[in-house]
Amino acid sequence: MSTPSRIEHDAFGPVEIPSDRYWGAQTQRALGLFEIGEERFPTVLIRAFGLQKLAAARANAQCGELAPELATAIEKAAIELHEGRWDDHFPLTIWQTGSGTQTNMNANEVIANRANELLGQPLGTKTPVHPNDHVNRSQSSNDSFPTVMHVAAAIEVNGRLRPALDELRAALAERSQAFADIVKVARTHLMDAVPMTMGQTFGTFERQLSNALARIDDALPRLLILPQGGTAAGTGLNAPKGFDAFFCATLAEASGLSFVPSPHKFEGMAAHDALVELSGALNTIATSLLKIANDIRLLASGPRCGLGELLIPEDGLTSSIMPGKRNPTIAEVLVQACFQVIGNHQTITIANASGNFELNVAKPVLVYNLLQSLRVLADSASVFAKRCVCGIDVDREQLATNVDRSLLAITALNPILGYDRVAQITAKALRDRVTPRAAAIALGFLDGDEYDRLVDPAVLAAGKT
Amino acid sequence: MSTPSRIEHDAFGPVEIPSDRYWGAQTQRALGLFEIGEERFPTVLIRAFGLQKLAAARANAQCGELAPELATAIEKAAIELHEGRWDDHFPLTIWQTGSGTQTNMNANEVIANRANELLGQPLGTKTPVHPNDHVNRSQSSNDSFPTVMHVAAAIEVNGRLRPALDELRAALAERSQAFADIVKVARTHLMDAVPMTMGQTFGTFERQLSNALARIDDALPRLLILPQGGTAAGTGLNAPKGFDAFFCATLAEASGLSFVPSPHKFEGMAAHDALVELSGALNTIATSLLKIANDIRLLASGPRCGLGELLIPEDGLTSSIMPGKRNPTIAEVLVQACFQVIGNHQTITIANASGNFELNVAKPVLVYNLLQSLRVLADSASVFAKRCVCGIDVDREQLATNVDRSLLAITALNPILGYDRVAQITAKALRDRVTPRAAAIALGFLDGDEYDRLVDPAVLAAGKT
Amino acid sequence: MSTPSRIEHDAFGPVEIPSDRYWGAQTQRALGLFEIGEERFPTVLIRAFGLQKLAAARANAQCGELAPELATAIEKAAIELHEGRWDDHFPLTIWQTGSGTQTNMNANEVIANRANELLGQPLGTKTPVHPNDHVNRSQSSNDSFPTVMHVAAAIEVNGRLRPALDELRAALAERSQAFADIVKVARTHLMDAVPMTMGQTFGTFERQLSNALARIDDALPRLLILPQGGTAAGTGLNAPKGFDAFFCATLAEASGLSFVPSPHKFEGMAAHDALVELSGALNTIATSLLKIANDIRLLASGPRCGLGELLIPEDGLTSSIMPGKRNPTIAEVLVQACFQVIGNHQTITIANASGNFELNVAKPVLVYNLLQSLRVLADSASVFAKRCVCGIDVDREQLATNVDRSLLAITALNPILGYDRVAQITAKALRDRVTPRAAAIALGFLDGDEYDRLVDPAVLAAGKT
Amino acid sequence: MSTPSRIEHDAFGPVEIPSDRYWGAQTQRALGLFEIGEERFPTVLIRAFGLQKLAAARANAQCGELAPELATAIEKAAIELHEGRWDDHFPLTIWQTGSGTQTNMNANEVIANRANELLGQPLGTKTPVHPNDHVNRSQSSNDSFPTVMHVAAAIEVNGRLRPALDELRAALAERSQAFADIVKVARTHLMDAVPMTMGQTFGTFERQLSNALARIDDALPRLLILPQGGTAAGTGLNAPKGFDAFFCATLAEASGLSFVPSPHKFEGMAAHDALVELSGALNTIATSLLKIANDIRLLASGPRCGLGELLIPEDGLTSSIMPGKRNPTIAEVLVQACFQVIGNHQTITIANASGNFELNVAKPVLVYNLLQSLRVLADSASVFAKRCVCGIDVDREQLATNVDRSLLAITALNPILGYDRVAQITAKALRDRVTPRAAAIALGFLDGDEYDRLVDPAVLAAGKT
Repeated sequence: MSTPSRIEHDAFGPVEIPSDRYWGAQTQRALGLFEIGEERFPTVLIRAFGLQKLAAARANAQCGELAPELATAIEKAAIELHEGRWDDHFPLTIWQTGSGTQTNMNANEVIANRANELLGQPLGTKTPVHPNDHVNRSQSSNDSFPTVMHVAAAIEVNGRLRPALDELRAALAERSQAFADIVKVARTHLMDAVPMTMGQTFGTFERQLSNALARIDDALPRLLILPQGGTAAGTGLNAPKGFDAFFCATLAEASGLSFVPSPHKFEGMAAHDALVELSGALNTIATSLLKIANDIRLLASGPRCGLGELLIPEDGLTSSIMPGKRNPTIAEVLVQACFQVIGNHQTITIANASGNFELNVAKPVLVYNLLQSLRVLADSASVFAKRCVCGIDVDREQLATNVDRSLLAITALNPILGYDRVAQITAKALRDRVTPRAAAIALGFLDGDEYDRLVDPAVLAAGKT
Repeated sequence: MSTPSRIEHDAFGPVEIPSDRYWGAQTQRALGLFEIGEERFPTVLIRAFGLQKLAAARANAQCGELAPELATAIEKAAIELHEGRWDDHFPLTIWQTGSGTQTNMNANEVIANRANELLGQPLGTKTPVHPNDHVNRSQSSNDSFPTVMHVAAAIEVNGRLRPALDELRAALAERSQAFADIVKVARTHLMDAVPMTMGQTFGTFERQLSNALARIDDALPRLLILPQGGTAAGTGLNAPKGFDAFFCATLAEASGLSFVPSPHKFEGMAAHDALVELSGALNTIATSLLKIANDIRLLASGPRCGLGELLIPEDGLTSSIMPGKRNPTIAEVLVQACFQVIGNHQTITIANASGNFELNVAKPVLVYNLLQSLRVLADSASVFAKRCVCGIDVDREQLATNVDRSLLAITALNPILGYDRVAQITAKALRDRVTPRAAAIALGFLDGDEYDRLVDPAVLAAGKT
Repeated sequence: MSTPSRIEHDAFGPVEIPSDRYWGAQTQRALGLFEIGEERFPTVLIRAFGLQKLAAARANAQCGELAPELATAIEKAAIELHEGRWDDHFPLTIWQTGSGTQTNMNANEVIANRANELLGQPLGTKTPVHPNDHVNRSQSSNDSFPTVMHVAAAIEVNGRLRPALDELRAALAERSQAFADIVKVARTHLMDAVPMTMGQTFGTFERQLSNALARIDDALPRLLILPQGGTAAGTGLNAPKGFDAFFCATLAEASGLSFVPSPHKFEGMAAHDALVELSGALNTIATSLLKIANDIRLLASGPRCGLGELLIPEDGLTSSIMPGKRNPTIAEVLVQACFQVIGNHQTITIANASGNFELNVAKPVLVYNLLQSLRVLADSASVFAKRCVCGIDVDREQLATNVDRSLLAITALNPILGYDRVAQITAKALRDRVTPRAAAIALGFLDGDEYDRLVDPAVLAAGKT
Repeated sequence: MSTPSRIEHDAFGPVEIPSDRYWGAQTQRALGLFEIGEERFPTVLIRAFGLQKLAAARANAQCGELAPELATAIEKAAIELHEGRWDDHFPLTIWQTGSGTQTNMNANEVIANRANELLGQPLGTKTPVHPNDHVNRSQSSNDSFPTVMHVAAAIEVNGRLRPALDELRAALAERSQAFADIVKVARTHLMDAVPMTMGQTFGTFERQLSNALARIDDALPRLLILPQGGTAAGTGLNAPKGFDAFFCATLAEASGLSFVPSPHKFEGMAAHDALVELSGALNTIATSLLKIANDIRLLASGPRCGLGELLIPEDGLTSSIMPGKRNPTIAEVLVQACFQVIGNHQTITIANASGNFELNVAKPVLVYNLLQSLRVLADSASVFAKRCVCGIDVDREQLATNVDRSLLAITALNPILGYDRVAQITAKALRDRVTPRAAAIALGFLDGDEYDRLVDPAVLAAGKT
C-alpha cells in the first residue's frame, strides 16, 4: 500500500517523490537529510515567497530575460502560492542550510511544477519551466531568501504588530481618561509614596505604547531595503540591469509596502543588521509590556489579601483545585510572550553576529525567531487590550482607604517646614500608628486647618504633570 | 453546515463543544480566549500527562480516595493518552495561564470523558467520573503541571538527548583514532602555530562531548525530584498521606526513570531552578557544539581557496545559482540549533527569575523552550554525527603542504637557542619568504642535520599529551 | 593613628566622617552598609551630576525658590563637580538602592559642604546650604538620577561613540577605495563562490558603519527627553511651575545637547525604555562589528596555512612561547568588547523589565552597564580604526592565485548553457582536479576563446554591486 | 618634569619604561596600544598568577629545567606577587589579546625584574632571569592564562561564594524556624490561595539555597582540572615529562584546592566549557535569589498600602525628597547583582561559543565577567543575609487579618462537598462581600461548627508540607 510516486532528477541523480506533491528533487533530498525537530516557517514566509517569485518573473519579463508565456505561467503559480494554495507543499522544517536554499528551491520547484501543469505538462518535467533557469532566473538563494525575510517581517509589522500595539495604546488611553480623577497612592521601591491619580498610571502605560509605535516606525525604513538583484554573493552576476528596480516596483504594488532596492546588495546578504535592529525594538517593547502587565496584575492582586486597587474582567477560567479562584490569566500570557521575545532577541543577536564573508548562514533560525516574536507580541498585546485592559475597573473604596492611611502626602510640607522636621512627623506617625496629620499637630508644627489646606491628596495629585 | 456540538457546563455556565471532541468546558473557554500564536506543547508533554494521571489515579486508589472502578477507567484512559491516542484533543497553544492550568484541565476533561465513555456514558456527562473531583483528585495544576514538566524533560534527556550526544561522542572518537597519525599545523589566534595531529583535534571534540554527558548526568538527580502531592500552593491540602510516594512508584515503573517525591513541595512549584539548571547544561553544550561545528566547517572550507584540510561527505544539495557548489549544510544546521538553545536559555532564565510567592506563572513558556532545546539539540547532534562526522576525511596532501610551509615548529628550539634567537629565525624566514630551516642555517644557529633532528613535526606532534 | 573625623547628623542620628571628605551622613551610612564589589560609576556620570545640580540651582533661582547667594554658591560648587574636582569624594560603588538615591545624596552633600565652605562655613554645618532643602530643592532622586542617566549617556554617545564609529567608517571607506580594483573570490557558506573585489568587501563593512550611525541617531531624540521636574514619583510635587523648562535650558547650554522636558514625567522614572532602546542600537552595532572583525582576522589568517588574503599591521606584540608569532590582537579586542556589549544588553533589558509601579529600581546597574557599553564600544572601534584598519594591506599574489584556482566564476555561463550543464562542468573540474575552463572545453560546451570572453573574473567583479 | 625611565628591549626593539615600574617591554607596548576602557582584572587574578608562576618554577626545578638559584629567586618573587605586593605593577586593562598573553607577559616581566633585583641586578637586565626563558619556562600563555582563570575562579568559589551562600542559607533556615507557627495566606498567580505558614515561605527559600550549594559543588570538579603543561596550543611542546603533575602538587598545596592536570590539555585552551558551566550555576542561583529578594520586598511592601506582612530592618537610609520613607535597599542591591550575573552569563556564553581551532581568544572578557559574577553574587548575598534576612520580622496582626478575610481555605471542603458546590460558596462570598463561612452556612451546605472543624487555617497550614 505504498504511496504512488514519480521520479525527478537533479545534478546528483534520480529522486522518488510522492505523485501528488508539487515539490521536486532538492526538496525531497532535504526532507530525507534533515530529520530534526518540528519547527516550520510560518505561512507568512511561505506566502511571501509567492510575492517574491511573482515580482522576479515580472522583472525578468520586463528585462527580456523570460519569454512572456513562461513568465505568465510562473506569475500565475506564484500568485496561487501567495494566496496560500500551496502551503501544504512546503514540508521542510527550518532546520536546513543556513542560506534557506532548500526553501527557496522548494518554492522554485513548486512553482515550476505548477507552471508546467498550467502549460499542460505533468509534474516533474522541468520543461518548459525549469526551477533554476526560469523560476529562479536572475536570482540566487543568497538574495531571494533575505528578500523574503524582509518582506515577511514587514508584512507582519505592518499588518499585525502595529495595529495590535495601537489597539493596546488606545485601550490604555481610554482607561487613563476614565480614571483621570481617581486618587491613589504612588509607590516607589514598592513602598507607599505621594498621591497621584490612576489616570496618570494608565497615562504612563499609554506613553510607553506611543513610544513603542515610534520605535517600530524608526526601524521600518531599513526593513524596506531589499538585497534582491545581488544574486550570487551580492555581485549581481546574471541579473540584468534594472532587474532590482522592476522587482521592487511589482513587489511594492502587490504588497502595499514601499520596498526599495539596496544600493549595496552585499550587505543585505552578509549581515542582517536591519533584522537585529527590528528585534531590538521588539525587545524594548517587551520590557515596556512586562512593566505594564506586571503593574496591572499586582494592582489587581487579592481579592482580599493583595493590593486590590484594580478589578480585571472575568475570563471564565479558574483553578483546578481552588474552586472560584480567579487569576490574571491574560496578563500572564502577555508576560510569557515578552519572555519569549527577549530570548528570541538573543538568538537573533547571536545568529547575526555569526556571519562570515559574503553570507550569513543563520538565516532560517534568525527569521523563524523574528517572525515568532512579531506574531506572539502582536497577538498577546491585542488579546490583552480586548480581554483585559478594556474591562479594567478600580475599587474606589480600597483606593480611598489607602490614600487616607498613607503617610507621604506630607512631602508637600517640605518647602514650608524643611526636610528634617517633616521627617520627624513621619517617624512619629509610624511609631504611634497615627495619621501624619495627627502627628504633625501633636508635634506642634501646624494646626489641623493649615494641614488640610496644604496636604490635600486630590489637589496634590490633580495639579501635576 | 455547522459542526454538530454538545453543551457542557462549568461554574461559569454552559459551553458549546464540537460533538466529537473529548475536551470539556474549561478547554473550550480557553480556546476562545487565547487567540495567540501557533506554538503547541510537543506531544511528549501531552503524553507525559497520561503518565501523570495514570500514576495519580493509582495512588488515589491505593490511598482509598478513589473507587476501584473509577480508578480503573481513569487509568485506561490515561494509558491511551500516554500512547498518543488523544493527541488531537489538545487544541490549546502554550499561550495560556502561567500555571498551565488549562492544559491540566484539558487532560482532566479528556480523561474524564473517555473514562465515562468506557463506563458507558456519553461525552459531557461528568459522571461517574468528574474531571476535578476524580481525575484531578489529590492534585492541583500547581503540582501536576510542574510534575509533568519534569517528567517530559527527563524523558527527552534520557531517551533523546543522551543517546544523541553519545552517538556524536562515539563518532568523534572513531575519527580521532582514524586520524591519530596525521600531522597538521595547530592554529592559535587563527594563526599558524606548532604541529599537532588531526587525531588530537577530534580528540578535543570527543572530550567536550564526554564532559557534555557528565553535565547532563549532574543535572538529572534534581530533575527526578517531583512536587506532586503539594496540591494547592505546595501545602498538600486534600492529598492523602503517602500519595506522593505511591505516585512516584507508579510513575517510575511506567517510565523507567527513578522519580522521587520532593521533601519540600513548595519549592518545585514556586520556582523551577532545576529546569534552569538543566537549560544551563544545554547552554554549555551548545557552546561546545558551536566550537566543533565551526572548526569542522572552517577546516573544510574551500575547495580551493579555503583551509581545505578536511573533506566532509556529500549531501546531494547545492546552490540555486552556482551549479555544483557544495556547502557544509549539516554543520550549519547544528550551528543554528545551538543559537536556538542559547536564546531559549535566556527565555527560561527570565521565566524562572520572574516567579512570585507560591507559584511561578511562566510555566508554559518555560517548558516549551526547554523541550524545544532538548529536541533540537538532540536531533541536530545525531544528524551531525550520522551525516557529517562519520564520513569526514582529510586531505593529506593539503595537510602535508601546510606542515612543510609553516614556521613555528621551531618553537622546539627555545630550550636550546633561547627565545630571542628563535625570534630572529622566524623574522628572517618571513622576511625572506624561506623556510625556517633555511633561515636557521643562514643565521648560523645550527646546521641542517641538527635542525632536522630537533624539529621533526611528526615527532613533535606525536609525542605529546 | 586614626584618621581625624567630624560628626554629621541626619534623621537617624550622628555619623562619623573623615574630616577631609566632603560627603555627608547619608553617603557615610551607605558606605558602611553596602560592602559589595568594586564597580564604580564612571566619572562621566559623577560629573553629569555637576551639570544637573547646576541647572537645578539656576532654575530654582529663576523660579524664586532659592536665594541668589545660595544659588550662586551651589552653582559654583556644581561647576567644580562637573569639572572633575570632586571625583574622589564619591566613594560608593554602584551596589546601592535601586533609585541611585545614595549617589544623588552624595552629590547633594558634597555640593552643600563645598557651597558652605565657599560661604565661609566649615564642613558638616548643613547651613546656610542644606543638602536636601537647597541643593536637592524641587528635586527628588526619582527624577534627578534618571535625568543624570540620560545626560551621561547622551554625552558619551555624542562625544565618544559617534566620533569613534565615524572614524571607523571613514577608515573602511578609505580602504574600500584603495582596494576597488583588486579581484578576489567571494565566499558563501565559507566555500569558494564567484569573483568580487576587495573594495566591495570593505564597502560592505563601510555600509554597516553608516547604518550604525543612523541607528544611533534614531535613538538620540528619546534620549534627550528628561524627567527632571517630576520630583517624587513623577508627580512634580514641590517643583515650581516652569522649573523643568528652565532646567533644560541651562543644561542644554552647558552641555551643547538639546535636552527637553518630558511631557509625561512618570514614564521617565518608572521605566527606562529609551535606554534599552539605545542599548539595542549598541547591540545591533556589536553584531556588525563582530562580523567585520571576524572577517578581517579570518582573511588575514596564516601567514602560510590560512587564507592569507589580507595583511594587518604589526603591533609589536607576540606569543610568550612561539617567538615571532604575530596575532590579530586588535581585532580580538574588538570582538571581546562586542561580547561585553551583548551581555550588558541582556542586563539592561532585564533591569528595565523589572520595574514596578512608579519607579524602576534597577537604575544603578542599568546605567553602569550602558555607560560601559558606550565606552568600550567606542574605544575599541577607534583603536581598531587607527591601529588595524588604516594599515591593512592585501596579498595580491595570494588573491590572484585563488581567483585562478576557483571554480565558480562559471556561474556566468548559466544564462548561456543552463544550470544543469554548468553543474556538469563543476563536477568534472573537481573530479579531475582541473580548472573549470579545461573542464568546459573537455565537455565540448564551448572553446577557450568563448570561455575567456564570457568568464573574466575582473569583468564579472567590476561590473557589479 | 618627565618621569625618569629606563630602556628595555624585545624582539621589536627598544621601549621606554618608567624607572620605578617592574613591568617590561611587552607590557609597555600593550599599554600604548590598547587605550580602551578602564576595566581591570580583579586582584584575585593577578595574585593567582603569583601562585601559577611559583608552581611552575618549582616544577621546573623538580624536572631539572631551571637552576636552583634561579628557581629560588623566581619563587620568592612569585610569592610576593601572590601576597599582593606587586598589584600596582599590572597596569593593563582586560582589553588586550584574547589569549591574555599581555597579562601573562606582565607577570613574567615583573617576576623576572624582581628576581633579578633579588639576585643583585638592576631592573631591565633580563639576566640572569629572562621573562620568557626562565619565568615562562615550560609554559605558554596558552596554558598559563587558562590555568590562572581556573585558579582564580576556584579561589573565589571556595573562599567567597560558597561561604556567602551558606551564610544566607543559614539565615533563611533560622527565620524559617522562627516563623514556623505563623499562619499566612499563600498566593498563587498573585491571588489569595490556601493557608500556609511563614516558616514554609522561608523554608522554600532555604531549600533553594541548599540546592544552590549543591549546584556549585557539582561544577567544582571540572573547575579543578588544569591545562597547564599543554604549552603551545595544547601540544606540551617544551614541557618536560611530569611537569604538569609537579605543578599541580605545588599549586594544590599552596592554595588548599585539589587541582589536577587535565588528561587532554588541548580542551582546556581551545574551550572554556567548564567556566560556562560554572557561570550557568551562577545564573541558576541568580534566578533563585531574584525570587527570594522579590518575595521579601513585596511581602514587606507598605507600610500602609502594601502587603505589609514582613518587616525588614532599618538601614539608616531614606528618600532625598520624602522624609522618613524607608525602602528595601538591600533587597534592591541583591536584585541588581542578579541582573548583572544573568547578563554576564550571556557574555561568557558567547565568548566561549566563539572559539576557533586550538585557542579560544576571548579569555580576558570571559574571566572578567566570571570573576565579577562570583564577587558580586557572593558579596550581595552576604550583605543580604546580615543586614536584611537576619533582622526580618512579621506583622502578626496583618497576617491574622488576612487569614480571616481570605476565601480559599474552603478548598479543604472539596473532598466533602465536591468541587462544584465549593465554587458556589466562593462565588457567593465574593458577591455578597461576606466570609466564606457565612456563605457556606447561608447556602445550607454545612453549619458553623462543621465549618470550623473542617476549615481551620492553622490546622491546614501546620499539617502539611
